[in-house]
Formats: sequence, C-alpha cells, structure tokens
Amino acid sequence: MKLLVLNGPNLNLLGQREPDVYGRTTLADIEAAVRDLAGKNGVEVDFRQSNLEGELVTWIQQARSSADVILLNAGAYTHTSVALRDAISAIGIPTIEIHLSNIHAREEFRHKSLIAAVCKGQICGFGAASYLLGVHASLSISLKK
Amino acid sequence: MKLLVLNGPNLNLLGQREPDVYGRTTLADIEAAVRDLAGKNGVEVDFRQSNLEGELVTWIQQARSSADVILLNAGAYTHTSVALRDAISAIGIPTIEIHLSNIHAREEFRHKSLIAAVCKGQICGFGAASYLLGVHASLSISLKK
Amino acid sequence: MKLLVLNGPNLNLLGQREPDVYGRTTLADIEAAVRDLAGKNGVEVDFRQSNLEGELVTWIQQARSSADVILLNAGAYTHTSVALRDAISAIGIPTIEIHLSNIHAREEFRHKSLIAAVCKGQICGFGAASYLLGVHASLSISLKK
Amino acid sequence: MKLLVLNGPNLNLLGQREPDVYGRTTLADIEAAVRDLAGKNGVEVDFRQSNLEGELVTWIQQARSSADVILLNAGAYTHTSVALRDAISAIGIPTIEIHLSNIHAREEFRHKSLIAAVCKGQICGFGAASYLLGVHASLSISLKK
Amino acid sequence: MKLLVLNGPNLNLLGQREPDVYGRTTLADIEAAVRDLAGKNGVEVDFRQSNLEGELVTWIQQARSSADVILLNAGAYTHTSVALRDAISAIGIPTIEIHLSNIHAREEFRHKSLIAAVCKGQICGFGAASYLLGVHASLSISLKK
Amino acid sequence: MKLLVLNGPNLNLLGQREPDVYGRTTLADIEAAVRDLAGKNGVEVDFRQSNLEGELVTWIQQARSSADVILLNAGAYTHTSVALRDAISAIGIPTIEIHLSNIHAREEFRHKSLIAAVCKGQICGFGAASYLLGVHASLSISLKK
Amino acid sequence: MKLLVLNGPNLNLLGQREPDVYGRTTLADIEAAVRDLAGKNGVEVDFRQSNLEGELVTWIQQARSSADVILLNAGAYTHTSVALRDAISAIGIPTIEIHLSNIHAREEFRHKSLIAAVCKGQICGFGAASYLLGVHASLSISLKK
Amino acid sequence: MKLLVLNGPNLNLLGQREPDVYGRTTLADIEAAVRDLAGKNGVEVDFRQSNLEGELVTWIQQARSSADVILLNAGAYTHTSVALRDAISAIGIPTIEIHLSNIHAREEFRHKSLIAAVCKGQICGFGAASYLLGVHASLSISLKK
Amino acid sequence: MKLLVLNGPNLNLLGQREPDVYGRTTLADIEAAVRDLAGKNGVEVDFRQSNLEGELVTWIQQARSSADVILLNAGAYTHTSVALRDAISAIGIPTIEIHLSNIHAREEFRHKSLIAAVCKGQICGFGAASYLLGVHASLSISLKK
Amino acid sequence: MKLLVLNGPNLNLLGQREPDVYGRTTLADIEAAVRDLAGKNGVEVDFRQSNLEGELVTWIQQARSSADVILLNAGAYTHTSVALRDAISAIGIPTIEIHLSNIHAREEFRHKSLIAAVCKGQICGFGAASYLLGVHASLSISLKK
Amino acid sequence: MKLLVLNGPNLNLLGQREPDVYGRTTLADIEAAVRDLAGKNGVEVDFRQSNLEGELVTWIQQARSSADVILLNAGAYTHTSVALRDAISAIGIPTIEIHLSNIHAREEFRHKSLIAAVCKGQICGFGAASYLLGVHASLSISLKK
Amino acid sequence: MKLLVLNGPNLNLLGQREPDVYGRTTLADIEAAVRDLAGKNGVEVDFRQSNLEGELVTWIQQARSSADVILLNAGAYTHTSVALRDAISAIGIPTIEIHLSNIHAREEFRHKSLIAAVCKGQICGFGAASYLLGVHASLSISLKK
Repeated sequence: MKLLVLNGPNLNLLGQREPDVYGRTTLADIEAAVRDLAGKNGVEVDFRQSNLEGELVTWIQQARSSADVILLNAGAYTHTSVALRDAISAIGIPTIEIHLSNIHAREEFRHKSLIAAVCKGQICGFGAASYLLGVHASLSISLKK
Repeated sequence: MKLLVLNGPNLNLLGQREPDVYGRTTLADIEAAVRDLAGKNGVEVDFRQSNLEGELVTWIQQARSSADVILLNAGAYTHTSVALRDAISAIGIPTIEIHLSNIHAREEFRHKSLIAAVCKGQICGFGAASYLLGVHASLSISLKK
Repeated sequence: MKLLVLNGPNLNLLGQREPDVYGRTTLADIEAAVRDLAGKNGVEVDFRQSNLEGELVTWIQQARSSADVILLNAGAYTHTSVALRDAISAIGIPTIEIHLSNIHAREEFRHKSLIAAVCKGQICGFGAASYLLGVHASLSISLKK
Repeated sequence: MKLLVLNGPNLNLLGQREPDVYGRTTLADIEAAVRDLAGKNGVEVDFRQSNLEGELVTWIQQARSSADVILLNAGAYTHTSVALRDAISAIGIPTIEIHLSNIHAREEFRHKSLIAAVCKGQICGFGAASYLLGVHASLSISLKK
Repeated sequence: MKLLVLNGPNLNLLGQREPDVYGRTTLADIEAAVRDLAGKNGVEVDFRQSNLEGELVTWIQQARSSADVILLNAGAYTHTSVALRDAISAIGIPTIEIHLSNIHAREEFRHKSLIAAVCKGQICGFGAASYLLGVHASLSISLKK
Repeated sequence: MKLLVLNGPNLNLLGQREPDVYGRTTLADIEAAVRDLAGKNGVEVDFRQSNLEGELVTWIQQARSSADVILLNAGAYTHTSVALRDAISAIGIPTIEIHLSNIHAREEFRHKSLIAAVCKGQICGFGAASYLLGVHASLSISLKK
Repeated sequence: MKLLVLNGPNLNLLGQREPDVYGRTTLADIEAAVRDLAGKNGVEVDFRQSNLEGELVTWIQQARSSADVILLNAGAYTHTSVALRDAISAIGIPTIEIHLSNIHAREEFRHKSLIAAVCKGQICGFGAASYLLGVHASLSISLKK
Repeated sequence: MKLLVLNGPNLNLLGQREPDVYGRTTLADIEAAVRDLAGKNGVEVDFRQSNLEGELVTWIQQARSSADVILLNAGAYTHTSVALRDAISAIGIPTIEIHLSNIHAREEFRHKSLIAAVCKGQICGFGAASYLLGVHASLSISLKK
Repeated sequence: MKLLVLNGPNLNLLGQREPDVYGRTTLADIEAAVRDLAGKNGVEVDFRQSNLEGELVTWIQQARSSADVILLNAGAYTHTSVALRDAISAIGIPTIEIHLSNIHAREEFRHKSLIAAVCKGQICGFGAASYLLGVHASLSISLKK
Repeated sequence: MKLLVLNGPNLNLLGQREPDVYGRTTLADIEAAVRDLAGKNGVEVDFRQSNLEGELVTWIQQARSSADVILLNAGAYTHTSVALRDAISAIGIPTIEIHLSNIHAREEFRHKSLIAAVCKGQICGFGAASYLLGVHASLSISLKK
Repeated sequence: MKLLVLNGPNLNLLGQREPDVYGRTTLADIEAAVRDLAGKNGVEVDFRQSNLEGELVTWIQQARSSADVILLNAGAYTHTSVALRDAISAIGIPTIEIHLSNIHAREEFRHKSLIAAVCKGQICGFGAASYLLGVHASLSISLKK
Repeated sequence: MKLLVLNGPNLNLLGQREPDVYGRTTLADIEAAVRDLAGKNGVEVDFRQSNLEGELVTWIQQARSSADVILLNAGAYTHTSVALRDAISAIGIPTIEIHLSNIHAREEFRHKSLIAAVCKGQICGFGAASYLLGVHASLSISLKK
C-alpha cells in the first residue's frame, strides 16, 4: 500500500515555537513516527506540506497514479476550500481527514469542514497520535478492498 | 487500563437486519473484536448498550470509579443530548466520540455533535473499525498520563 | 394485518383533566374506537403509551417481528427525537405519523417533525379521529402490498 | 353534506405521463373514487382543478354558499400563496389540506405550508388515498356539528 | 388628476361576512367614500378589484396612459409578488401602498412588503379611512409636480 | 380633541442644512402647517422634539392626562427603543406612527419598527405631508369613539 | 426542432418606455431576431408572453406535445413560483432559463431562482442577446439527442 | 402547602466531585436546607432526582394529586425537552424554574429554556440559594390563592 | 449591607393605570415592602427610578462607593442597552437582575437579556414578590463574602 | 477581438477520468473547439488553467493590456474568492462567468457566486457548449462597443 | 483646525478602578495627551464625555458650527444607536470612530458598529494611543481639503 | 524596530488605473511614504505584495526571526483566509490590520474580518494615510515593551 500524507498551511511551524504550549513534537517527528508505523506494516509513505491551496490541489490530483490512500490534514483550508473538496471528489481515492486538535471543541467557524462530505472518515483531537490512527485506518480500508 | 464502551439507541439492531445493505457485523461481533484487541494490550473492557438517554447518563456517572477511558458511540443522542454532555463534563474521564458512519457526510442535522466540545477527540466513518481505532486512541491517551 | 399503535409522552393524561378545554375523550376511549374499527376490518391491534423516549425506541425495534404497520403519535418527541427517527428508518415497517392537533397551526417549534422524513405519511388536526383515519390509511397501505 | 374538492396547479397532469414513475392514476380516477366513497355516505361532490392562484381564491370565496367542507390540494401554491390562506381564513368553512406525497419528506421548501395555520388538519403521503382519507375526515368533522 | 384605485385578493369579501368582527363596511362603501372625497377635489376615480396577480399587473401597466396616481391595496400579494413590484417600478407613476390593518402589528410574514421599496409611501392601520388618507396623499403628491 | 405631536432625535435639524438635498422645510414650518390644519378642525396641538429617548418616554406617559391622540415621529428610536414601545402600550392612548421618508425603501435595518406593533397605524414616505395625513388620521380615529 | 419561447410578467413593456434607460429594443424586436436565427437553423418558433403565472404553467404543460426545447424568461415569477418549477419538472422537456439582466448582480432576492434546479442551464446578463444565446444552446442540446 | 422539588440529570453528582471547583454542597445538603426552611413555614416537601426525562415527566403528571407548587431544576433537559414543557402545561400546577448557575451567562445553547414559557417564573445564578429562593417564591404564590 | 434598587423606564406607571389588568400595586408600594423586609434584616435601601438610560448608567457607576448589592429591574433597557451591561461589568458590585413578569414567556425579543451575562443571577415572573426575593438573594450573597 | 479564457482548479482533470460518468471531453478538446469557433469569427484566443487562486488573479490583472473579453470558469473559487472578484472589478474588462454544470441545481453552497456581481453575465449548465456560448456572448458584447 | 473629541458611556470610569486590569490611565490623562499632541500641531480641542445617548446626539449636531473633525469613541452606543448614526450623517463633518479595545476581537455583538457606515474611518485596539492616532488621522484629513 | 509591511491581492494595481476614481497614488508611492516616516523614527522597513494567500502565510511565518511588528493589508483575503489568521496567531508578533477603505461602510461581506480577532488593532478608511497611521501605531506598541 502506498500512502500520501498531506499537510496544509502552518503545519510546518509545529513544535518549533512555544514548546510550553504546543509541545516539542515537530512535523519531522510526526513524519518519522508515521514512517515507522507504516514501515512495520509494509506501507510506503510520501509525506508533504504546503502553505498553498493550489499546490495541495495539484498533489491530490497527482495521487491518482501514485497512492492508494490519502491522509489529509488540510489545516485552515479545511474550513474554506471548495477546491480541495472538488479535487478529492474527482480522483476517487479514499481520503482520511485528520486534525491534531478536536476541531469541534474550538471556535464555531472550525466546526464545519468543507471536505468532510467527500472523505472516508475523520479523526481529530489526539495530537500527533491522530496521524498514527490515520495509518491504522488506512490499513483497515486497504484490507477491505 | 479499564475501558468503558457505551453504545446508544438503535445500535443493538446492528447487523441483524438488511445484511445486504448494512453488512452482517453485529454489535456482538464488534464487542468481540474490541475485546480481542483490548486483551492483547492488557485492557479490561466493559461493553454496554442502551436506548435510554438517562441510563447512558447514569453509566457515565458510574464510570468515575470504574474506568480510565470511555469510548462513546452515542448514536442519535449525539445530536440532541445536553445531558450526556454535562455527564461527560462532570466526571472528567477522557471520553472518545466514535461513529460508524461519517456523520459530517450525512444529513445537515447530524453534522453538529453536542458532546464533541467535551470529548477528547472524534473518530468517525470507518464502520466497525472506528471502535478499534478508538481502542488504539485510548492506549495513546493512557500512555501520556 | 397487525397494527401497532404507539403513544408518546403526556398522552396518558388525555381527557382526565380540564374536560371543558380538551374534551372528555380519554386515551382508553381512543383505544376502544381504534379496536372497534380495526376489528371490523380484521386488523389486530397492539396499543401502548410511554413517557420514555428509549422505551418507544425499543417498542419500534420489536415491531419488526410483530407488526405490519405502525401508527405513531410521538407527542413532544416528534420535535426532538432523532432516536425515534433512526428506529423507524432501521426497521423498515411503514409508519404513519399522527397528531391530535394540527401541529402546523401551533407554536413555531411544533411545525418541524424530525420523524416525518422517514414516515409514510402524516395525519394531524382531527382530534381522536386522527387515529381512525390512521387505521383507514393503514388499510390502504396494506392493500397495495 | 356538500364537499368542494379543489386541486391546484399541475394536478391535471396526474397519471398522463411517465406512468412507470408516478403510476397510472389520473385526476379523473381520483375524482371517480372520491365520488364513489362520498356517494355511499350521502355526500355531494364538486370537483375542480385550476392552474391559476386567483381562480382558486375565487372558488374558495364562492364556497361560502355552496359547501360544508373543502378538501384542498393546493399543490405548489401551498408553499407560496398568502392569498389562499386569507381566503380560507375569511370564509370560515372547515378546510382540510391534502397532499399526494409526504411534503415533510421532500425538499426543505416544501415542509412549510402557508395555508396550514388556517386549515382544520393535514393529510399527506398516501397518494390517491389521501383524498379518500380526506372524505372520511370530512365526515368526522360533519358529525361533530 | 386621475386616480386608479386597485384592490387585491379577497378584498371583494369585505363587509359581507362576520359583520360583528370585521364591521359592515363593504368594498362598495369604500368606493363610494373615495369617489365622494375625490369628487370634491376634482379627482377622477377608476376603482377595481381582482383575485388574479397577473390581472393586477396588467392594470398597473395600462395605468401608464390613464392615471396620475395609483392607490394600491395589494392584499396578500403585498408579501409574495415580485411581479407587482416590477410593474410599479416599470411604469414610473407614483404609487401609494395602503392597507386596512396595521400589517406591522400582525403575523411576522406580513411585516415585509415586497412592493414598499418602489412605492412613494405607505398608509396602514386605519381601516376604510386608509383609503381616504390615500386620496389626501395623492393630492399632496399631485400639488408638488 | 387634543393632539400631542412628538418628534425624536435629529428632527430639529430639518431644513436647516443642505437645503438642496433635503428641502428648506424646517420643523417649525411643519409645526405651523400642523397647527393650521388642526386649528381649522378644532384640534388643540402640543408639538415637541427631543434627542433623549427617556424624555420622549416621559412625555408619552404624561399624555395620559393631556392628549386624545399622539402623532409620533420617533426618528432613529423607531428601530431601537423597546422603552417607547412599552410607554405607548402602557398608556393606551391611540398613537399614530409617522415618518418623513418611506422607511421600507431605505436600509434593511430601518424596515423594522419596534413600535409599530402597539401603534394604531403607520404613515410614511410623504415628507412633511405625512404629518398632515396624521392629523387627518387622528380626526378619523376621534370620530369613531 | 420546435422551440417554445415563453416570457413572463412585464416583459411586454420592454422598449416601450424610457428608451434612454432600457434601450429601444421591444419584445417584438427580440421575437424577430429569435425567429431569424432559428429560421436559419431550421428551428420552428412559438413565441408568447403572459402576466399570469397559471397561464404560463398551462403553456408549459401543453408543450409536451408541441415543443422540443423551451426557452423561459419567467421574469418576476423566477423568484416566487413553485408552480412553474413543478410544471417544468413534470413535462421533462429540456428548459433553458434566460434573463435579460444578470440577476446575480441585482437585489439579493433576485439571486435565488426557484426554477433553476429543474432547468438544463441558465443564461443571464446579455440583454436581448440572452435569447439568441438561448437559441444556440437549444441547438447544442438538440444535437446531443 | 405541599411542595414537589424535582432535580434533573447529573444533579446527583453535586458536591461529590471536584470540591475545589464546585464546592462541597451536595444535593443532600440542599435537600436538608430546603426541608429546614420549608418546615419552618409549614410546607411539606417531596424531593427527588432522576436522570430519565420520561420519569421526570411522569412525576410532574403525578403531582396533580399531591402537590401545590413544583420547584423544577430540569438541568440539561431545560434546553431540549418539549415533553417536560407539555407535562407542566397539562397539569396546571404553578411550576418555578430554578438553576444553580446563571444560565444566561453560560454557553449560547443554555440561554434558551424550552420550559420557561409555561413556568410561573425563573430563579437562577444563586447556587444552592436558588432553591431557598424558590421556597420563598412558592410561599408568595401560595398566599395569593 | 447597603442595597441600591434601580428601576428602569415606565416602572413609575405601575399600578396607576388599568388596575383590572396590572393590579393596584404601585412602585411606592413595592418600595415600602422592600424597605420593610430590608429593615428587618438590617439592610439600608436606596430606591430609584428613571426613564433615562444614561441616568441609570450614572447611578450604577456611583454605586461603587455607596452600595454592596444592586437590584436592577432595567425594564425595556434589559433588551437594548449595552451601556448598562458595561457599567455593571465595570464596577464589579454584585448585581441581581429582576423582572415583574416572566420575560421568557413573553414576546421573542424579550427573551434575550443583554445584561444577564454580567449579573449574578436573575429572578423573574413573581410580580412584586420578585423584588422581595431579590432582597433575600442579596442577603445570601452578602453572607458568602 | 482578443479573448482570454481562464480555467480554475481541477478543470485540468476534465475527461481524463471516469469517462462513463463525466464524458470523454478533455480541456484540450474544449480549447480546440473554442479556438475553432473563435477563429471563424476572427477572434484571437489565449487559453489557460491554474489551480492557484493567486495566479488566476495575476492573469486577470495582466489582461488589462492583452484582452478585450475574459471567459472565466473559476471552478471552486467561484464560491470562495473575493480576490478574483476584486481583480475583475479593478480591471474593468467585460468578464463572462461560465460553468460546465448548472451550479444552481447542485449543493446549496454552489448556488452563490462571489464573482457574479462584477461579471457581465453568466452561462451555466451546457457542458462544453457553455464555452462556445461564451464565445458567442463575447462577440455580441464586442459588437456593441 | 478645531477638533471635537466625544466620549460615550462609562468612559468616565477609565483608570479609576481595577488598575491592575485596565491600567492607571484616566480619561483626564488621555485628554491631556490629546491636547498636547493637538497643540503641537495647532489644533484646538473640545473634549467631552456623556452617559446620555441624546446628549451625544446634541453635541454632534452643535459641531456644525464649531468643529472641523470629530473624534468619536461612542462606547456601548457604537452597537445600539441609530440616532448617533443619523446625527453624524446629517451634519456632514468628517467623523473618526475610535475604540480603546479591538472591538472585532471581543464578543460577537461588539463586532457590528452601527455608526461605521457614516464615519470616515475606524481606529481600534491601541488603548489610549487610539486617540493620538485619531489626532494624526484628523490632520491627514484636514490637509486634503 | 523592524517593520514588515505586507500587501495582499490586487494592491499592486493601486494608482495604475482609473486615476479619476481611485487617485494616482501607487503602492510604490505608499512604500516611499512609509519608508520616509519610518526612517525618521529609526524603523527599518520590509515592504512586500503578493496575490498568493500561501505566500503571505509563508512571509508571516518568516517574520518570526526578522520583524518586531507587522502591518498587514490583507486585501480580499481579510474576509476569506483562516490560514492567515492561524499564521498570525502562531507567530505571536503584534500585527496591525490596515485597509485603505472603511471596510465597515462597504458591502456586507466586507464587514467581517477573519483576521481581526488575532490582530492588535485595526485602522481603516484613511486611504494611503492608513499606512502612516499604522507606522505611528507600531511605534506606540514598540514603546510599551
């Protein structure tokens, strides 16, 4: 199984700032943990981050020929991007929506995900562990095929 | 670790009807799979179902002295019960919200979860696998303590 | 044909109080009239009332093996219960929504029925006669099978 | 008892088109069934259809001197006509709102009936049988006078 | 000055029914009073009523060549007709909106007038006197030209 | 008949500024015209203006012993003052709401009048003539007593 | 191909009034241009206008046996008529919604078209040219059959 | 005077948990204080708690023959239960709504009380003292009879 | 303890008008009853009324040096005054919101209190007794200090 | 005439995937058809696609010196981009909004176009033919200059 | 240049209370700083505060003959006063809206300013410095004349 | 002090087009004026513009090591970008929101700023002077550290 892990805007800042508040886990740490768990299960990982909505759209489009499942932490674009929604819908590859925080317990405008309706499922609120749960979920989807 | 798994209204019907549509997995099958995964990780499981909102409230209250984590599939009460929200909030035990289906991809009135704001996180859309991901999530929470 | 007639919260008070305002017809009177009309048409009747949302859910679930049509006056739960909606939807037995009063002519919050979308049809506003019209409607549904 | 049965816009198309989808029952068939049931109960029937909102208003006004009960399937005007509402309200003859389909289970804009607040009751969702239930309801109202 | 007085749906019923409630003033009485006041001020009156939205639209269009001011009691169409609004806007003759009752003190849906934005002014709440005030208002507009 | 004419905030500026835009009619001119028309009809006039919401409330209260009808141009307080509404409602003297401009043709927030529900009627859009129509309306009310 | 071109309320006024503002193109001019372009492409044209909602409904119903495509400029009824929507939906002939002005750039209440959901497509904002684009669109639909 | 004091979901947890946050006053302490004050004023007290909406409905129904006033702290059901509202409305015994916290100063969804419209009055925000104020209020109501 | 009792607009009219409807209790009667109960409990009372929002703001500001608790019946300003809210919030003296009627059972616009969020608690619906319950509440707050 | 045709996010996927569902027409096919029709009418075409909102903004800005008309299929950005709206508004070149599907017949959030208010007109619902109708519309606009 | 600085309700309390929270800067300190900066730039200052909405309205009206620019910190009236808006609009003197706090980062009801639409611009969030920025802004406006 | 001045989409067009309408001040002119004022106060300036949301996000992230204050005119992204909000919130450097026009006096959708809640303050409506006021504001913030 090939897994594409996409990270949206500002996730590159993770763990580099205010460690007392957000912890010291960086996006590189998360990538390592994902690769570790994926590797043990024979899953190949492509892990990327971009601040550009359009670049994320392009990467999702390209996944048609290079991925079996997409793990998508779209960050702020979760709530504003119809373009991401259309891309996911167009390629037809199962996409799992993940978030570090519980978006339903934050500001009202973060409760609504524009991409949820075209994703397989949603995992949120477990910090870095959300990504690992996403790998487990990818495996469970993969087994059903 | 002791895990309390609570199931809300109508989940007792799972798999007993219209297998062509909903599959043949019953709530008993899910319980078995949860017990299996939990057992391998040294987790004790208490697994229950009720159609009564008030009974679910009472079980959550009693968890104060008997559980470390709650997995809660509140079913229809997810969207209508402030009483469940208050119970979760009052006991302070980490509670993980799970759903078989992706509630954000269904009717508008299922997008809003009244209990999400007081839960640790949410996992939805993976069918029976949502429960197993919930067990994994419980372990990750437990490790952080 | 077997007919299950379910009555929700507060309907047990019918006719016992303020007869000048609400009339003297009790729920027992309605039951008798329903049994009378049903009997003449060879219909078997099971007639129940509960103040508990969860108990109504359970009775609907049990109807799978014991009823051909359900007449449901869900009372106040009409406007607040997603659990009843899910139960009706799950069992697949034709359910007819009835109300004594014309709910669309009362307070705004009574105009919206959460269960209507999964019921066969709705009859409201005819007082006790709403139940008898429900029996006629059950027969017409039954004939079409 | 004299019964005025009014049918709103597009109901003249009934059964003439796409019989696989909508069935082969025409408005003439419904009229015959209504006349049959009414006749057996000594009820005189006046049965009409119009695509013009104002003509329906006029017919309701004229009912003051010629009908005891009105059965009204206002079709699309149910959701847009305050004029029909005012006419019903002005003449004071009991009016029963009927619909072939369960309007509460269709598009959001069909859930709201502008005329419901001034009608005696509502019957919807039973196809052609909705009209016959309307005749039964008329009889029950008539008996109470 | 030539004055066109238009009356919308159901106004033909005025005074013919429930005199205890609505009074005994008929539309003919109002017409007579309007003609009397208008005559004393040298104003020619054309007084009409229709239940058809489209006929009212046509009469407004024809006023281009036959009236200086329009008094319009659009009745129920006040709240639902964009067609009347467009007709008034197109012909450019000053139109005065009148109502027997104070529409702002009635049901919420009567507070909004779709035609108000293109009328010169609004007079409501004075019963038959609203028409006479409308004649006075027409004279004051006429003097300003 | 004694008539109290109350003017709300900023109406004292009328006609003193930007005559090209708003015309040269001052509040004093309007007062004179009102007194003239009232005098001819044997009506005594008390004419006041205040920028203070509370002072207007007090004047309405005092009208209980000194006025038969109130003409109220509440200006901006029309849309924000529940206190004026309560005062009108408490004293029970017929109050006529007037406005120079057609408030229903201006910004959305001016369409809603908080006082309309407790006033006898509304006259708006005729400039200074709105006041004179108000005097006519007062006379018509007075005659009915 | 047979083309039915329907025009709603007030479109008969086109070009007859205020030529400086709206231009001098009349509905007859548009009809001529439509007939010219249609003729060159072997399309037969039936061109009508009505101020009556119900008459438009009737004409759409009759198109079942006499037209291949309908061009519909419903004017003000675009925003208020569920009856037109139901008629279009019932007959199943491809209908193209056209407007002279860009309705999405006008008042808020003109942004919503009640008929759009059952039309093939929408063309608006090009003045009389909207009709000619509608003819082109009809040809492109026709070719696909 | 006989006083029924009803407590809704989660109120049984009061004071048993997180004393630093919520204080150490238990529901038993409140009951004792209520009984003490009531006793001094010759009032008989029946004091109950339930997590079940339907059980609370039943208790309110039974109060018809056993109580003069009801003190109701409906907890979370305050905001979701039409059934409680209907029960209070049906029995006609004066009911006083009480809350420990000031519900109007908490989350938006707690500002709206579904039962307020059928209660005599509301007391909230005074902690355990809200109950004692409720006893005082009951006495003042009782005196008026 | 020193208690400041503030009364908003129109409360000076209390009991002076329509005694059949509102009763004969005047604001002076209420003041006397408050002084009587307060005196028995050693509480000093300052009792005022104003129709001016700004004057109420000023009195609240001055309470910083002269009161321990404020009883505030803000009348109509309850629903419209952010200035009162800010004043209460700024001075930090516990303020108790009282109302004669149950504002939650009246018109929709009276359900929302702009000041509730910064008050200690709310008492409404008990007529003049609301003030006496406010005195009791003040004592209970005072004891906790 | 020089025509700039801009295509927004995901339009590059057109026809490359799920031909059974979306057809086999690619964006290149559309470009060829546009160039063909444009060429016959002496129109020069610049045809582009981008997934980046900002790049589309830049291209619109550059059109000031290189295009006479813009055909814009903004895809998902139609519903979310104020930046595109501002760009169109700033450059003042007539812009025609086109869509393959009838956006008014899809999900609610696609009914609202943020760019429509600053475009000349809108053409939607005709598949690839929408582009050709856009070329025709461009010519009609061009002729009017 | 003559500058009128107006301060709304509760601003007189500034710095006199809870210095740990709000700082020790008083309104007198702000006045001194404003006079200092204004003096250096040859600007004459009139600095006032009132808790009365109507008095602020009057002061704005009087500014017509005595000020070139108004700095207005309307405090709570920012969000509720149409009267202030009308006064600003009527006198036509450039008015600059200032706030100590960033109103857009506070409670939802403070995000909307009723006066913003008629002010030159808005400065908020810089504490006492907001006033000095307002003086700078006044100078920049003045230079443009 | 180091100051980063960021300009969002379409601001590069400033002054290059329609000078009669928007003036002839270009973004380069503004940059020069900002550098001039900043230079006199010993402030170093980095001045940039981008049409790409993601590039603006990246520049804000990079400011962590290179700026003390950010002046942000986010243009259209002010109203649609949660990504900018998250970036500002993450880096913790004081950010001042500026706009050339008074956004609160324009279209409804421009009244809401998604970034305001995480900015220090807002300055809008003073044209190019808004930037210079922003420099003054930066200095006042800087002094407080």
